[in-house]
This record gives sequence, structure tokens and C-alpha cells, in this order.
Amino acid sequence: MRTFTPQAVRDQMLAVLDSWGVADDVAETTTTVLLYADLAGIDSHGISMLPIYHRLVVEGRLDVRARPRILRETSGTALLDAGDGLGHGATVRAMELALAKAQRTGVGAVAVRRSHHFGAAGYYATLAAQAGMVGVVTSTTPTRAVVPTRGTRPVLGTNPLAFAAPTTDPGRPFVLDMSTSSVALNKLKVHDYLDKPLPAGWVVDGSGQPVTDPHDAYARVRAQRDGGLTPLGGSEVMSSHKGYGLATMVQILAGALAGAGFAPRREDPSSPPDIGHFCLAVDPAAYHGREAFAVAVSEIVDTLRAQPPASPDKPVLVPGDPERLARLERTASGIPLSDTLLCQLRDVCSVSGAAFLLEGA
Amino acid sequence: MRTFTPQAVRDQMLAVLDSWGVADDVAETTTTVLLYADLAGIDSHGISMLPIYHRLVVEGRLDVRARPRILRETSGTALLDAGDGLGHGATVRAMELALAKAQRTGVGAVAVRRSHHFGAAGYYATLAAQAGMVGVVTSTTPTRAVVPTRGTRPVLGTNPLAFAAPTTDPGRPFVLDMSTSSVALNKLKVHDYLDKPLPAGWVVDGSGQPVTDPHDAYARVRAQRDGGLTPLGGSEVMSSHKGYGLATMVQILAGALAGAGFAPRREDPSSPPDIGHFCLAVDPAAYHGREAFAVAVSEIVDTLRAQPPASPDKPVLVPGDPERLARLERTASGIPLSDTLLCQLRDVCSVSGAAFLLEGA
Repeated sequence: MRTFTPQAVRDQMLAVLDSWGVADDVAETTTTVLLYADLAGIDSHGISMLPIYHRLVVEGRLDVRARPRILRETSGTALLDAGDGLGHGATVRAMELALAKAQRTGVGAVAVRRSHHFGAAGYYATLAAQAGMVGVVTSTTPTRAVVPTRGTRPVLGTNPLAFAAPTTDPGRPFVLDMSTSSVALNKLKVHDYLDKPLPAGWVVDGSGQPVTDPHDAYARVRAQRDGGLTPLGGSEVMSSHKGYGLATMVQILAGALAGAGFAPRREDPSSPPDIGHFCLAVDPAAYHGREAFAVAVSEIVDTLRAQPPASPDKPVLVPGDPERLARLERTASGIPLSDTLLCQLRDVCSVSGAAFLLEGA
Repeated sequence: MRTFTPQAVRDQMLAVLDSWGVADDVAETTTTVLLYADLAGIDSHGISMLPIYHRLVVEGRLDVRARPRILRETSGTALLDAGDGLGHGATVRAMELALAKAQRTGVGAVAVRRSHHFGAAGYYATLAAQAGMVGVVTSTTPTRAVVPTRGTRPVLGTNPLAFAAPTTDPGRPFVLDMSTSSVALNKLKVHDYLDKPLPAGWVVDGSGQPVTDPHDAYARVRAQRDGGLTPLGGSEVMSSHKGYGLATMVQILAGALAGAGFAPRREDPSSPPDIGHFCLAVDPAAYHGREAFAVAVSEIVDTLRAQPPASPDKPVLVPGDPERLARLERTASGIPLSDTLLCQLRDVCSVSGAAFLLEGA
């Protein structure tokens, strides 16, 4: 594991995207969103996505030259078609539209179809908080990974949900960014890599029994045949029907509303995944007032952070805190990238004809 | 446990509300919302609320004559003040406003402050689905019941979240209605009543350890001092920070946005609880189209219901199914009311000067 400056990671991403023919402005946005994840400690959604995007480009399933276009628009809404292009620029556009509409009518809601992976959902929700508004962002995901409560086969994606709101401190918005499964796929990857048993409850097999062997779990989820991740809650007695319900809600809001795809119904797995997103912006100016709202949110998060913890070394945190702490640390000390990832990135560069810039430590 | 016809339960509620001086139209709405819960099997949110409302009336904290008024309004939003009155009529008004706005601009979002308990959140979300739209409804709750991840004391409410969407079958919309805690308070009450141990993970004590004794658990949560319900997820390893994040999101969306109260910051516990609600309506006509959307939602729920279950006798359900099945059964066989509840209702009637109509079986 070596560490690199944010600038070095950014330059490498730009070099790769340029080699694929991504336009400068799109590459700039894409890199900014991916770097947000790398700095926030969300390693699964940053530069580590490049090898995955590369495979999609090679397979002809990702059109890196596509630009989102507006299919429908009202004073409060819009529907975008991302043209099977990268999801980042399309979703920035969607949230910017939602914010502009919310500025005028108090609320804006924009859906996106025919998109791809868009990095960390929290990035787009944070754009709203930075503008003094409430942001809600959801997305479908193409991997059938999550087993419905009482079920045996994976049907739903890890379908993320992000929510952000401003506080009185512009550097510390409230940012919830979560998959609706017990854990995200990446946690299984890390346990597989470290040969570390899983807690019972993260993954079940085809008869609903817990899988704790990390290699079995990771292989099972990748195969998308039987068993998989549990919905948030973990088991029926712990109300996993709620996590399952939330995952389905996201599929409806981000997928069905936009007219995007639903993984189990896709007939041709070699076609583009037709991912859907949904961005909502709500302007507190239309309600309690922007300043009064930020004060009220600060009162909530301050009350929570001041709670006495069960263990003195584990303080009560607020959504957004772990990512903010990671950002401080990585901005100072650099972004760690594993040897495996560096090796994959070198391959991508070599095939794409991009310079490999992460040679030194 | 005796059972009563929906009409008998409705008549009893109307008689009590009338005795308190509730206007006919408000009583009609309140009764309809409460009966929805009784028929759906959500026993904690139906007629069983009357003794609780009665106490609030006697204490002078619930103004049954209040009518909601609009404080602010834009083409897409409104802020209502419920005047410390019953929450049901105010929230029906809020959702109707949101739907009317969504009909014109594609999306409508209405917040309510100075409200009270509003019954089952799913009722209002279902209004949206019945109108062919997507509905999202959240509410703060006044009881400090939920312990944040890593915390020791109860801070947040069970803060419910409801989401509904139409399918191609008007009688079977998708309706998710969940508290953001592992379980709702009522489950503890039932376990206390039945002397049945709790699963480890529902309730923790002041040092974060599981409480399984049902009487200790229920008394602890009622005392609101140390320990309480866990957020959805149950434990840190099972990602309870997500349920905790969702509960906080609801507090921000339904409370801070409207300028409603936050239970831990209330200085005078004898004042009205200043509950807040938030209603969002999104019109699929502005996106994929109403018909195409209903077809897409049906594809999702049909796929889920067709999943092979782990146990043949426990089919995979979709949010809204248990309530729909309960409604069919109770419409045919009646609504069961416990002797304890009947006794409480008789007392309410006696003190209020209302006729007690649930004498026979």
C-alpha cells in the first residue's frame, strides 16, 4: 500500500480519461467526483472504478463521448437521458437543474435514465447542502446482489441513498450516504482480500443461512445466482424487511420513475446497464428560512455529537463525520492505493495508451 | 380479545371526538386515518390512540379545535401551521396541497409544524399512489426512544418514513411504512404484555448491552433516561449507523425544515410537542409517464413476489402486502380490541361524556 497526493491521483485519472477520448470538461467533472470518494475514504468509488469503466468501454457498453440531454422539463422537474455515458457529469447536471428549479419554485426533482455508475451518491447531495438546500440522491445499481427478506436469490442492487443538509458550519454539512444493504459489496472484497471471516448476517446462502467464509461470500455475491447480501436489518427478526423496502423504494424512485432498467428484467446482459438516478433539491427558504434551518440542523447534530458514548474511545458520530475526518487525513497524508489496484491501473494505461503516473511512492 | 365491525369502531371514535368538541369534518378525517391503521393491522396507530389523545386534551396540550393554516406558499411548496391540533387533518391537507402542486409543476413538497401524532404515515403516502403519483411522508415523534450508534441515551424518535407508488392494480399500490428504529415501540408493549423475551438487538441498556427482559425493556424505553431502541441495523457491526442516519434525516426533513421541535431540546415538557411532518408528491407524468411508470413498478413488485422463498410457507412479500392482507381479513372478520384497551376507552367515554358503543362482542 503506497500513498499518493490528491493531485497525482487526479492527474492519473485525467490522463486515462483523455486517452479514452473523454472531453475535457466531462473528464474534469468525472475526476472531481471520483477524487471526492478517494479523499473521503470511500475507496470503492474513486480511482478504483477506472478498471471497471475501462472494461465497459472495451465491451462497447459505455459511450464516453455521450452528453446528457433533456427529454422533458417542467418548472419543477426534468428527465435526462445520459446516452449510456458516464454517470458523473449527467448527475452533476441533474442536481444543478434540480437546484435551479428549487431556487425558483422551492423544490426541484430531476431523474436520469440510460446512465452508468456515478461514484459516491453523497457528492451530489453535498452540492445541495453547499447551496444551502436539502439534497436527496438515489441510484439503481446493475449488480443483483441483495436477497429480499425470506428470499433465496439476489434480485436488488445495493441501491444507495444519500441525503445532505447544511449546518451553520459550511465545512460540516450533514451528509448521509448509504447503501440499503447491510454492507456494501466492497466490504466483502476487503474481507476476501484479508482472509477475515464475516460477521453472521451480512451474507446468506441460497437457503437463507448465514455465510461467514469470506471467499465463499465474495464468490457467491459475484456469481449473482443464489444467496447474497442481506438488506439493512440483516434478518427478518431484526426487520430486514425495512432495508428490503428501502432498496425497492430506490429502485422505483431512481429506476421506474426515469424509465431506466431493472437488472432482473434485462434480457441482454451485454447491453449497457441503463442505470437510473434521482436528484431532489428542497429550498429551506420556502419553509423555515435558510438561516433558521441551518441553525436547527446544527442543534440536532450538536446534540448528537455531545451524547455520552458507550466506549470513551468511540465517540458518537454524525453522518458525514467519518468522511470528513478521512478527508482531513488524506489531504495531509495522501491517498493509499493497493498494489493490486496500481497493477490494474498500469494495465489500463498500457492498453489505453495513457501515461502511467503513479510509479513512485 | 373481542372483535368489532369497522363501522362500530368508526362510530365509537366519532362519538369520542364529538364529545371533545372536534368539528364534524375534522372528526371524519381523523377517524378515517385511524381506522385505516386498525384495518391494516397497525394496532398501535388506530383507535388505541384515543386514550393518549385524551390525556393530551386534558393536559391542555392538544387543541382539538385548531385548523391548519398556510404560513408560506410557492408554486411547488407550502408550510402549514397545525396550531397544536390533531395531525391527521393537517397532514391530509398537506398531502392534498403537495399533490395539487405536483399536478401543475411535477413535484410538490409541503411541511407542517406545531402538529401532533398523525396515525400511520402510510395513509398519506397512499393518497399519492391513489392519485397516480409517488408519495413520501415523514414525521418527527415526541418520545426520545432511539439510542444513536455508539451512544447510551435515547435521543431520537422512532421517526417514521413512508413511501408509496402506484402499480397497474389500483388496489395494490407499493406502500412502505416503517419506523427508522429496529422495531416500533408497540412491539415492546406486546412483548411486555405477553411476558415474551425480546430478541437481542432490539433494545440496549445504558452501556450498550442488549436487554432481552421484556418488562425491563419496556420500562426503560418509557422512562427515556438510559438505553432504548436500537436504530435499524441493530448494532454497529450490522450498520446501525444507517438506521441512525435515517432517523436523523427524518428529524431534519420533518422537523428542522418546518421549524418544528426537537425533543431533546424542548425546555418545557408540559408544552405541546410541536411535531413536524413532511409530504412530497412527484408526478410520473413529468418523467417516464404515468402509465409506463405503473407498469415499471408492477414489473418490480411482480418480480419480487415471484422469488423462491427460503421456507415454502413464508412467501416473499412486498411492502404493503401484510397490511393489505390484514385489511381483507379484518374487513371480513372484524377488528380485534384487547380488554385492556376496551377498559381504557370506556374510561375515556365516561370522563368525556361520550356514549360507550363497544359493549357487546
